[in-house]
Amino acid sequence: MTTACNVAIVGATGAVGLEFLAVLEHRDFPVGNLRLLASHRSAGKTLTFRGQSFVVEELAENSFSGMDLALFSASGSISKTFAPIASEAGCTVVDNSSAFRMDPGTPLVVPEVNPEAVQGMRVGKGGIVANPNCSTIIMLVPVSPLRAAAGLTRLVVSTYQAASGAGAAAMAELEQQTREVLAGEPPTCNVFDRQYAFNLFSHNSDIGEEGYNTEEVKMVRESRRIWNDDDVRISATCVRVPVMRAHAESINLEFKRPLSEADARSLLAEAPGVRLVDDRPANHFPTPLEASGEDDVLVGRIRQDISRNGEQTGLDLFVCGDQLLKGAALNAVQIAELLL
Amino acid sequence: MTTACNVAIVGATGAVGLEFLAVLEHRDFPVGNLRLLASHRSAGKTLTFRGQSFVVEELAENSFSGMDLALFSASGSISKTFAPIASEAGCTVVDNSSAFRMDPGTPLVVPEVNPEAVQGMRVGKGGIVANPNCSTIIMLVPVSPLRAAAGLTRLVVSTYQAASGAGAAAMAELEQQTREVLAGEPPTCNVFDRQYAFNLFSHNSDIGEEGYNTEEVKMVRESRRIWNDDDVRISATCVRVPVMRAHAESINLEFKRPLSEADARSLLAEAPGVRLVDDRPANHFPTPLEASGEDDVLVGRIRQDISRNGEQTGLDLFVCGDQLLKGAALNAVQIAELLL
Repeated sequence: MTTACNVAIVGATGAVGLEFLAVLEHRDFPVGNLRLLASHRSAGKTLTFRGQSFVVEELAENSFSGMDLALFSASGSISKTFAPIASEAGCTVVDNSSAFRMDPGTPLVVPEVNPEAVQGMRVGKGGIVANPNCSTIIMLVPVSPLRAAAGLTRLVVSTYQAASGAGAAAMAELEQQTREVLAGEPPTCNVFDRQYAFNLFSHNSDIGEEGYNTEEVKMVRESRRIWNDDDVRISATCVRVPVMRAHAESINLEFKRPLSEADARSLLAEAPGVRLVDDRPANHFPTPLEASGEDDVLVGRIRQDISRNGEQTGLDLFVCGDQLLKGAALNAVQIAELLL
Repeated sequence: MTTACNVAIVGATGAVGLEFLAVLEHRDFPVGNLRLLASHRSAGKTLTFRGQSFVVEELAENSFSGMDLALFSASGSISKTFAPIASEAGCTVVDNSSAFRMDPGTPLVVPEVNPEAVQGMRVGKGGIVANPNCSTIIMLVPVSPLRAAAGLTRLVVSTYQAASGAGAAAMAELEQQTREVLAGEPPTCNVFDRQYAFNLFSHNSDIGEEGYNTEEVKMVRESRRIWNDDDVRISATCVRVPVMRAHAESINLEFKRPLSEADARSLLAEAPGVRLVDDRPANHFPTPLEASGEDDVLVGRIRQDISRNGEQTGLDLFVCGDQLLKGAALNAVQIAELLL
């Protein structure tokens, strides 16, 4: 029998916050007391969990007393300030921001890939675990079993990222802009500084000296860290597309050892957190819509890369995963389950 | 002074057909007589060219008598039947279908890349020239000058393709579906067998034995043919996104010789048919919306590929081009200009 775990949710009214509640309920997480925390602006709102109403409280230094687990999905600066406070109070934190992801003392975890990274940690004992970037998680779930089988040397990925990655306001803006464009009106640009409806654009994060944006750098660095592999060579191009809540990724893989398409398909069919959607005759492959609301990362278009001169050392994949679930809330709750 | 050229347009009422008229007018092509041809269904419709009305006629065997140039944008089977008839009648054909693209006797031409392929051909003398696939053209315009400078060994491309590539009906369906989804109604699926609004999917062309769809195979084979290079290794992943009329492509390049990012940028700044949109501080890069209605292929996100272990033998690009213009009608008219 599992002991009840007192859970605090930071950023409870955001897009990921609401998914935390749905995932905890859906997975029968042993929630004891539940405390919903948000900014001053959202305090006083009411949210429902297991048929019961909870009033959102304003996040404060004493918010974590008596709590065993805190799921954070607010800004990086909120995490930087409040995750150590929670941890000090004996509340174990799973943090969805990028604040601690590259901190050597903080495990960065995809439960299907590196669950051993949280060994020795428990809810109610303090400590912080970082939840990776959504695009990183969705890529690593299907690529990791192939990497384990054949050794990964290089990866080139291009993403097709949904509005949800920029939060609930971005999803609302995509919908509002689409209505406006269809009505022949100029699109309202608040979250993004350009038209998103019927358009796409390079990810709106800062560009570093090497020409890669922050989202792309996260995919490179976090993958290396989770795989504990500084040699794997990765190039990423991150693009936002006018889709609501699931990311797609086109992934080109280069292996140390040959890996046949058939073997790759078998590995993926058995892999945890993966569902094959790869029906060539029916032209049925992963789509963001089919991935929306699903726990699994959908994988298809599995094929030997024809640019490898007949060597079976390359594969192409097309994957889709729900950005709010496996890309965020679900992965965080799965981490929490490792800590029970 | 250029002699007037009698022009027939086959598929005049289609999405590309209408662009043929706009491009001929915009570029002051020396059109003498103009004959607009289409299926029985569209015959009798009226279209305007240079302020004058033209009635669309039904395509027939005698449609090409007295014509010097025919621009075809109908089905491959229409081209297979009628392009040879036009050619026999002394009418030179520029064919936008895939019917003759891989025929060794038919030049396949991007004017910025291999204009020499039409040497000796003239309007009014018969003969067929094939217009490449839209995704191929949009890729080759920016990649060719880099290839010329450093020798291209391998290319990995992922596309973000617009509705227009599937014709005017697909564009209308995307709009209709979007209205329906926003109204909470089920989307009408006629052109595509799934929801396109707020979704994306692997290109809806047949999948061959190697797991690549026809669109991807076209990109590989046509690029090799236009470059006259059977050694270049190419892998493509083609995806349709809910965008109206411009394609985007994320391109990873591997070169024989080092090519610095600065040199690549200089080459692209000088390249015909290319416009640099690569402002890192402003996060301003090519978008389909900015490319729509533009002749040039927009190129940005130019950066040394960080997965090449510090060698300057790899580059990443993100490009956008108008599928109906440079991807179809404009390229065809530019080919016709070579034949004047």
